[in-house]
Amino acid sequence: MTDIIRADGRSTDELRPVTIERGWSAQAEGSALISFGRTKVLCTASFTNGVPRWMTGKGKGWVTAEYAMLPRSTNSRMDRESVKGRIGGRTHEISRLIGRSLRAVVDMKALGENTIVIDCDVLQADGGTRTAAITGAYVALADALEWGREHKFIGQKATPLIDSVSAVSVGIIDGTPMLDLAYVEDVRAETDMNIVVTGRGLFVEVQGTAEGAPFDRRELDALLDLGVAGGATLRDIQTSALADSAS
Amino acid sequence: MTDIIRADGRSTDELRPVTIERGWSAQAEGSALISFGRTKVLCTASFTNGVPRWMTGKGKGWVTAEYAMLPRSTNSRMDRESVKGRIGGRTHEISRLIGRSLRAVVDMKALGENTIVIDCDVLQADGGTRTAAITGAYVALADALEWGREHKFIGQKATPLIDSVSAVSVGIIDGTPMLDLAYVEDVRAETDMNIVVTGRGLFVEVQGTAEGAPFDRRELDALLDLGVAGGATLRDIQTSALADSAS
Amino acid sequence: MTDIIRADGRSTDELRPVTIERGWSAQAEGSALISFGRTKVLCTASFTNGVPRWMTGKGKGWVTAEYAMLPRSTNSRMDRESVKGRIGGRTHEISRLIGRSLRAVVDMKALGENTIVIDCDVLQADGGTRTAAITGAYVALADALEWGREHKFIGQKATPLIDSVSAVSVGIIDGTPMLDLAYVEDVRAETDMNIVVTGRGLFVEVQGTAEGAPFDRRELDALLDLGVAGGATLRDIQTSALADSAS
Amino acid sequence: MTDIIRADGRSTDELRPVTIERGWSAQAEGSALISFGRTKVLCTASFTNGVPRWMTGKGKGWVTAEYAMLPRSTNSRMDRESVKGRIGGRTHEISRLIGRSLRAVVDMKALGENTIVIDCDVLQADGGTRTAAITGAYVALADALEWGREHKFIGQKATPLIDSVSAVSVGIIDGTPMLDLAYVEDVRAETDMNIVVTGRGLFVEVQGTAEGAPFDRRELDALLDLGVAGGATLRDIQTSALADSAS
Amino acid sequence: MTDIIRADGRSTDELRPVTIERGWSAQAEGSALISFGRTKVLCTASFTNGVPRWMTGKGKGWVTAEYAMLPRSTNSRMDRESVKGRIGGRTHEISRLIGRSLRAVVDMKALGENTIVIDCDVLQADGGTRTAAITGAYVALADALEWGREHKFIGQKATPLIDSVSAVSVGIIDGTPMLDLAYVEDVRAETDMNIVVTGRGLFVEVQGTAEGAPFDRRELDALLDLGVAGGATLRDIQTSALADSAS
Amino acid sequence: MTDIIRADGRSTDELRPVTIERGWSAQAEGSALISFGRTKVLCTASFTNGVPRWMTGKGKGWVTAEYAMLPRSTNSRMDRESVKGRIGGRTHEISRLIGRSLRAVVDMKALGENTIVIDCDVLQADGGTRTAAITGAYVALADALEWGREHKFIGQKATPLIDSVSAVSVGIIDGTPMLDLAYVEDVRAETDMNIVVTGRGLFVEVQGTAEGAPFDRRELDALLDLGVAGGATLRDIQTSALADSAS
Repeated sequence: MTDIIRADGRSTDELRPVTIERGWSAQAEGSALISFGRTKVLCTASFTNGVPRWMTGKGKGWVTAEYAMLPRSTNSRMDRESVKGRIGGRTHEISRLIGRSLRAVVDMKALGENTIVIDCDVLQADGGTRTAAITGAYVALADALEWGREHKFIGQKATPLIDSVSAVSVGIIDGTPMLDLAYVEDVRAETDMNIVVTGRGLFVEVQGTAEGAPFDRRELDALLDLGVAGGATLRDIQTSALADSAS
Repeated sequence: MTDIIRADGRSTDELRPVTIERGWSAQAEGSALISFGRTKVLCTASFTNGVPRWMTGKGKGWVTAEYAMLPRSTNSRMDRESVKGRIGGRTHEISRLIGRSLRAVVDMKALGENTIVIDCDVLQADGGTRTAAITGAYVALADALEWGREHKFIGQKATPLIDSVSAVSVGIIDGTPMLDLAYVEDVRAETDMNIVVTGRGLFVEVQGTAEGAPFDRRELDALLDLGVAGGATLRDIQTSALADSAS
Repeated sequence: MTDIIRADGRSTDELRPVTIERGWSAQAEGSALISFGRTKVLCTASFTNGVPRWMTGKGKGWVTAEYAMLPRSTNSRMDRESVKGRIGGRTHEISRLIGRSLRAVVDMKALGENTIVIDCDVLQADGGTRTAAITGAYVALADALEWGREHKFIGQKATPLIDSVSAVSVGIIDGTPMLDLAYVEDVRAETDMNIVVTGRGLFVEVQGTAEGAPFDRRELDALLDLGVAGGATLRDIQTSALADSAS
Repeated sequence: MTDIIRADGRSTDELRPVTIERGWSAQAEGSALISFGRTKVLCTASFTNGVPRWMTGKGKGWVTAEYAMLPRSTNSRMDRESVKGRIGGRTHEISRLIGRSLRAVVDMKALGENTIVIDCDVLQADGGTRTAAITGAYVALADALEWGREHKFIGQKATPLIDSVSAVSVGIIDGTPMLDLAYVEDVRAETDMNIVVTGRGLFVEVQGTAEGAPFDRRELDALLDLGVAGGATLRDIQTSALADSAS
Repeated sequence: MTDIIRADGRSTDELRPVTIERGWSAQAEGSALISFGRTKVLCTASFTNGVPRWMTGKGKGWVTAEYAMLPRSTNSRMDRESVKGRIGGRTHEISRLIGRSLRAVVDMKALGENTIVIDCDVLQADGGTRTAAITGAYVALADALEWGREHKFIGQKATPLIDSVSAVSVGIIDGTPMLDLAYVEDVRAETDMNIVVTGRGLFVEVQGTAEGAPFDRRELDALLDLGVAGGATLRDIQTSALADSAS
Repeated sequence: MTDIIRADGRSTDELRPVTIERGWSAQAEGSALISFGRTKVLCTASFTNGVPRWMTGKGKGWVTAEYAMLPRSTNSRMDRESVKGRIGGRTHEISRLIGRSLRAVVDMKALGENTIVIDCDVLQADGGTRTAAITGAYVALADALEWGREHKFIGQKATPLIDSVSAVSVGIIDGTPMLDLAYVEDVRAETDMNIVVTGRGLFVEVQGTAEGAPFDRRELDALLDLGVAGGATLRDIQTSALADSAS
């Protein structure tokens, strides 16, 4: 894209090293420890037969998500939300985003009356925790759905997965659009955008915010291009992680 | 745009009737009761000299916002968040969006060490409450800033307002992009997007969500076009409301 | 009563201008926006078929109320109770008072197993918010009961309303008893009393408090006389509002 | 008053046996364990030199109160408010009533910048807990003020006590006004009133509520007469308790 | 043990004066007001037929406990946990300890599907509140079980009580092991231990904490010896209280 | 000890495999990811210059700890305490235990006015989470103290560490004392004990609970012997982890 080299040596359209340790948890039906550079998120998917009472009898399932950060995942320690007795707005916002993103690729009828709760706990934070969470949660979700099929809670013919889904942040720094911002980049960005795309390249969610100056249509287009390309790379990494035999 | 006529007789690129009762409150430094069709939001702006302790001594001001719905603003009564003892994720999310949107058009240095708290209380809800809130809050904010100048808390030369700001929802229903969704439209939309634009037509926030099927780039572009046009109309209505002598 | 003229030009036994906008809300089964001078309270009555589980099977209904103030209804902004995470004692006290006052004029057997929730939200406050709330809530309640009859949830023969109910504040300022105190009067009052009376002039609630010096029996009698007279005027205003055809 | 004999053998204008164990607590600056029949309330008064920050520098003191019931003070166990995580409306209401009642007899200037916190904990409940609490709290308050004078936190010349204060419930049962209702009477009362009077017989608070049918002026007068007479008896019992040497 | 005489004249292996007022409460099925010197705890046992839903149908009962301190039970007033809106760690810890200790001597099958809730409210605190609570709660429990047998909720043949249970604190002060620490001793102790023993002298709970220097095996043994001896004395006092006819 | 072989092949006096990944976190001043078999706890130590206000000016430091479990660390998902809005008793109890255990080996004067907050987050749970937490937290603490010395917040001469500390569970299963219980063993144990010992073999905390039948002195002695031996092994593993150059 440009010749600009970032602090960590990446080009503007390059992701940080992404790794996915599938099946990290011995307890959950599906799990993945995902890293976007120094950002590490433990994603688990808990499969429960049945749905909340208000959904019973409709023949449809439910997928929901909760996001949280360990208090010392960040550079300076944050107070625990359990100790404060209330969940902050940012946490709520991200939990809802993750849930919506995953539901977009699940056929709730094919899931049947089963519930999947996704937990994304940030063990170490260096920017892009919500996008890493969505990307890792998809892998955990896929394994939990497979578990449900193996245990006959889900019909054998069709998988409930319609598509895959991943997410990446993009932003404009000193006028230059960049992919997958690390924390030091994120705080400097004039515009910050999170893009959630399916494996086929369709948009599930686009959230762009002018942190500094408002942005114009040309900048918006450049950010969308970067995000879609990043999403394609993440899809390939997910596919590769899910191809491994061990779960 | 198309020949489709909506349930309330609007064309696809038409706003609902928008009215702004500026200065509705006798108590607040700035206020506006805004209607987007049957949606009615009371917006007040409270001016306080001084800033929170953690901002003191930096010569900059602060603008923040809180959004809430009256329990029977909606078709069936909701429990009060004060009674439940906690604020829901949606409320948090919208409060944060309103605050970011307004801060994008305020020069915090020109505001000086003053704080403005915006309250947006939905008296009646019929879709688009967050976009009506942002649009009305701008009018309340403008009056509160004027109050601050009159009372010499803000320097006389430059207004802290860099630009105006308004917001509107857009969505895709049965494959057709439409402007300013009423509640019955909102629940049917496949894709739902809120667009916050400045008077000059720059983007402050773009939040698009696939409620049903994911959307492609062409649909995204159509939604952005509709939103920018709607924002221009809202800007003119704001300008007209602020041109009236009485506040 | 005396020749004393108050700050707003009223005589000591005169109410502030009272207006009732019946049917203000397009969502609630009954509603009224009531003003006592600058005090404005939005009252809605939500009708639900059925009663809380602990009341089921007794053939009786339930009426309850919640009161709240918008954060900038007052001269300086108050924190939201939803943000603080707890409801204050004053809010609780007034909610309970409104509920008791309305239940006193409803025949719960005639109401049948239906629930009415009254919401009184103070949009602007200038003294007497609880008395305006009770007076306006009665109008909202009457319309919600009528809605219940029209929809056959309530038997057609007898209305569940036994009587009407209204409320007014009285107080002693500089030794003089006065009716319907505005905020500037309320803070100066030595004794402050809220009187809830039925349309027939019987007492539902009498709450008198010595804010300054304790009061004697003669002062108490004078306050009761003023309150009963004020209640009669409010009853006539309620009757007139309910006589209008549109709801 | 009448020949009616109550379940416990009292006449209609007779108090239950009242006992005051002054100085029950070895920890508090003032304390009293008061009984109104089977109702037992432990009242403590905690004296602290200094006032809350918002009152500093005005040369005035502060008196506040908190009321609570032990979970098994009542016939069937109630959940603890600490476990529920919130204080109920009734608790708030009574705490505020006790605080107002005591402040009415304290000269805050003579108290100086000192704070007294009254705690009224109901150990056993059989009706009239709030009136027993006020009556006992006065004794605890008097001793805490004396402690403050002995320890030179309060000036030696004038006592901050302007008058004494006590409280009693009255109510109408089967059309008959009665004094000091026990629990079985309280639940049957058509009208229930709490009267707080000073030692000189002036009113501090009058709170009458129609639980069943609304009441007329004649009934109100009869209740006030009963309450004033009961208050005079309680004043004598307080005086006698405070005359004992040991504190 | 040694010739050391403590501040209150006790020898190192001597309990403070212990009194048990059995049946103090007229409301609860079982109750005891216990004193360990100046420490006074009101213990009530509430018997309910039935068990929580998750235990239904197993033919077994449940015993649970809640502990709390009155705000002015201590030398300086503490804030109420109900006002703070959350229960502190110490309160939770002690409530759980009391529950476990009592369950250790109850045969849940013999209890049948009945629930006993123990409330231990500290009226006055001078060290050892948790041990006094356990010791007093056993007496309240025994009477509540007897009530259950009299009312035929529990089978007549076997009592559900397997053994009795009591508790006492021990500690090392200036190198000397001592029994039943008063508050002034407790704050000086290098090691602090609470020992819960059955009437037969078996251990239910041993909780030893090095507040200052860690302790060695010899010191641990000396503390255990003291505690077992103290427990035997407390068992005799319990037996004597329960032998009295009146409950 | 005996010839009994456990489910996982261990002898009764054998620890599960213990591993310590020192410096797991790139953010915290000290950290360790510790495993006791399948139990995995992430321990971080956050060093802050300064102490809470109430400790200022005493020349002493403070060490505190918080413990939590990820929702799907366990076999079936638990609700988050942040979502429930309150911390449970077990969490409080363990947090306090970890804090006390670490403070026992820190010389607060040598630490100076610095604060260390320990966070122990259970990533995967299979019994013994609190003992793994203490053992790992010691390693994180040691590194955070070293960081403080390198950054000159702590004096150079003496380390604030007086000794090392570790913890292990012991229990009686089918009458046999066993070391380091896995979850399946823990639920079957008649007696369960947690023993916290210093590197020199002194006791910091002994917490033994009869889950089934009460235990006698001989059993208690056997458990203490096992725990002390296990502690010695853990001390050696800690020493070895801290001997590695990288932190």
